[in-house]
Amino acid sequence: MKTKLLAIICAVLALVSCSQDRVIRVKTPARPAGQQDVIGLTAEPIDTVRIGFIGLGMRGSSAVYRFARQPFTKIVALCDVEPDRIEHSQANLRAAGLPEAAAYSGSEEVWKQVCERDDIDLIYVCTDWKSHAAIGVYAMEHGKHVAIEVPAATSLEEIWALVNTSERTRRHCMQLENCCYDFFEMSALAMAQSGDLGEIIHAEGSYCHNLDQVWPRYWRSWRLDFNQAHGGDVYPTHGLGPVCQVLNIHRGDRFRTLVAMDTDPFNGPKHWKAFGGKPGEFAGGDQTSTLIRTEKGKTILIEHDVMTPRPYSRMYQLVGTDGYAAKYPVHQVCQRSEGAGEVDYENLQGEKVFNDAQADSVLARYPVPILTEELESLARKVGGHGGMDFIMDYRLIYCLRHGLPLDMDVYDLAEWCCLGELGAMSIAAGSAPVEVPDFTRGAWDKVKGFSYAL
Amino acid sequence: MKTKLLAIICAVLALVSCSQDRVIRVKTPARPAGQQDVIGLTAEPIDTVRIGFIGLGMRGSSAVYRFARQPFTKIVALCDVEPDRIEHSQANLRAAGLPEAAAYSGSEEVWKQVCERDDIDLIYVCTDWKSHAAIGVYAMEHGKHVAIEVPAATSLEEIWALVNTSERTRRHCMQLENCCYDFFEMSALAMAQSGDLGEIIHAEGSYCHNLDQVWPRYWRSWRLDFNQAHGGDVYPTHGLGPVCQVLNIHRGDRFRTLVAMDTDPFNGPKHWKAFGGKPGEFAGGDQTSTLIRTEKGKTILIEHDVMTPRPYSRMYQLVGTDGYAAKYPVHQVCQRSEGAGEVDYENLQGEKVFNDAQADSVLARYPVPILTEELESLARKVGGHGGMDFIMDYRLIYCLRHGLPLDMDVYDLAEWCCLGELGAMSIAAGSAPVEVPDFTRGAWDKVKGFSYAL
Repeated sequence: MKTKLLAIICAVLALVSCSQDRVIRVKTPARPAGQQDVIGLTAEPIDTVRIGFIGLGMRGSSAVYRFARQPFTKIVALCDVEPDRIEHSQANLRAAGLPEAAAYSGSEEVWKQVCERDDIDLIYVCTDWKSHAAIGVYAMEHGKHVAIEVPAATSLEEIWALVNTSERTRRHCMQLENCCYDFFEMSALAMAQSGDLGEIIHAEGSYCHNLDQVWPRYWRSWRLDFNQAHGGDVYPTHGLGPVCQVLNIHRGDRFRTLVAMDTDPFNGPKHWKAFGGKPGEFAGGDQTSTLIRTEKGKTILIEHDVMTPRPYSRMYQLVGTDGYAAKYPVHQVCQRSEGAGEVDYENLQGEKVFNDAQADSVLARYPVPILTEELESLARKVGGHGGMDFIMDYRLIYCLRHGLPLDMDVYDLAEWCCLGELGAMSIAAGSAPVEVPDFTRGAWDKVKGFSYAL
Repeated sequence: MKTKLLAIICAVLALVSCSQDRVIRVKTPARPAGQQDVIGLTAEPIDTVRIGFIGLGMRGSSAVYRFARQPFTKIVALCDVEPDRIEHSQANLRAAGLPEAAAYSGSEEVWKQVCERDDIDLIYVCTDWKSHAAIGVYAMEHGKHVAIEVPAATSLEEIWALVNTSERTRRHCMQLENCCYDFFEMSALAMAQSGDLGEIIHAEGSYCHNLDQVWPRYWRSWRLDFNQAHGGDVYPTHGLGPVCQVLNIHRGDRFRTLVAMDTDPFNGPKHWKAFGGKPGEFAGGDQTSTLIRTEKGKTILIEHDVMTPRPYSRMYQLVGTDGYAAKYPVHQVCQRSEGAGEVDYENLQGEKVFNDAQADSVLARYPVPILTEELESLARKVGGHGGMDFIMDYRLIYCLRHGLPLDMDVYDLAEWCCLGELGAMSIAAGSAPVEVPDFTRGAWDKVKGFSYAL
């Protein structure tokens, strides 16, 4: 009789506990004994930063071009599986009047030799996504700081490997999120930090970029392969990075929950078929939307669409209690207008909205602390998506030279990359909410507000 | 022993069944015996449509003004709790050279007398949201067709009452979703239906409109009261209506699942306090986002924000497999460009994008079947949000006069209004997915594609 009662209680409890818990919970691995968080991590200042470049495709070859023009750096090694890519970058060095670098090519493991050198401070990783984290871990284990292209990690396992390795080795692990350094985003961040937009309560970002013509350019079609094999937002960092800085993520706030939803794959399988794959096997939806809710009750929307012909957009929208700023498709700034008098409710637009040049002149009132006229002019000259790539490199080198914390740490990397696997989990469960791990393991509220170290 | 085993099996089954079912399922009431769906509903043609107006506030008084200029109609009765509003609309009739209408005011039940008249064909409802559905049900029960302002229903109970009453009485129950008749939306629908955007796989809509200055104008502050008492997207129809027509919702596709997420209420409680309420009691978040997935694997994003100063926007974005159209903040149309040759991957915008006047001239190639030059010119002259209100009225009267199905039926009403209660359920459960009922109860695939009856 007692057992029967127990049976009923068990069943009821099980049912009740689940009906109240529709959230998918992901295990946070315990921090290994003896290691600390890397919030505000600093390292010994480096006079001239000696760099090894791994991966010299589209992003890597541009990086070498830029670093040939970046002061206080020395390009020590160039590495790519394909020898012709080495030669292309060596030619870039020669054209800039620099000596050739040590060359590594010919195998998929040759990058390890670069990490093992003892005359390198920084490994700069521009390989395909799948090899990012492994190279990052190995580089830090060999005493190097590491800067890794986006997304630096494609799974929770890779994220935790990078977090744990950075914590254990006390080496910097920065994700190369260039969009944090675009001019509009930096100015809007400055305006948000001034308080003139009130409290930012909702933000949006995206990667909407039709890659129709670009798919054939990826080495062994790795990018389409990845989209074919993975659901969730596989490329969220350009949208997330800049808005996370505004929202002070792990600097007073943190992600609590996300939900993701995607369309069926419509165009993806057509490309996949063109590369010889079977169309029925395509995992990633053409358009993926992810909603995130933070500890402080703010929300973020992130979208990904590389499959349909549409205007390039990273959205970048800030909704504040006292104002608004958005970048795409036109620059917009809006602030609460006081005492507007009689309201004409047929006139739907009550606020004064500043567009394009007007918006830019509003933003110009908020100076970006890391930007000098000289830097801006050099960045625009060297280029890299209009200059933002150069400014990103500059800040990385500046902070390493002065022994300062980097603008983006390994927890930013973790937060901005987790939308891939967590989003895929949500989608697989019918868009169920997923609890986002605290990648700082308790330290998300230690620093109050994002700031650049100067 | 047997009982113990049963206990274990029970508990395990309970756990397993919930872990696989994170979706909130809502009961669909069975269709009452003897009644049929109202897909394609027609009624006896009406030569001159005799109308009773209930609710003469902001929307109602504009409607009377417009109908004084709408051919083939007769304004029979005017009803509002407040007598001065009757007088305001009577003056409008006199100014248009029309006779005064029968007047009903002075109580909150007086509208029933209008519905009970036997010389009225159509009840036009512009009261506060909470009374919409009750008036609609009562009007149909008294043999009248009914047109109800948005949102026509604020809960599932109200939605099913309207659906069941329309099915039982065979009376039309149309929601007055004017944004379906705005020029851009109608042209973009025509372009989408031409196939030139490919298949539309994702769409967006919103109601982003700062109501700071408008709150005091609502009768007894009913709108702020509603926002205070309810979570979920309480005003989704302006965003949803136009994109649901494009996506053929219950005309070959249907909503399957939705998830909603909102911010904390930041500005809402400040307004609430100004109206004498306690700030801690505010239910509705300032910004609400809802994602919907359809049977055919398409997605819809709907946003609501009436609390922050920002540019007015209904978003209206169509993402197609071969092209893109968007209305806010600038008109944009984009189509796949063929054979663009060498790709410059630093140039992020590969497609040709048409903005504003250029976009409008692309759209002008797709004629809107219900629009004549004469109607457009009259609509722009009479006005009502630039003309769309007049066109909506025109179509309602046209279809009633010719005994045709209306452009929007009671199932559109149901689908566009359900985001309120279903969204609130999702939010209350941490953004859990909610299964959207099939409001047609099995008839969503009977008609293939949205079209205007002509």
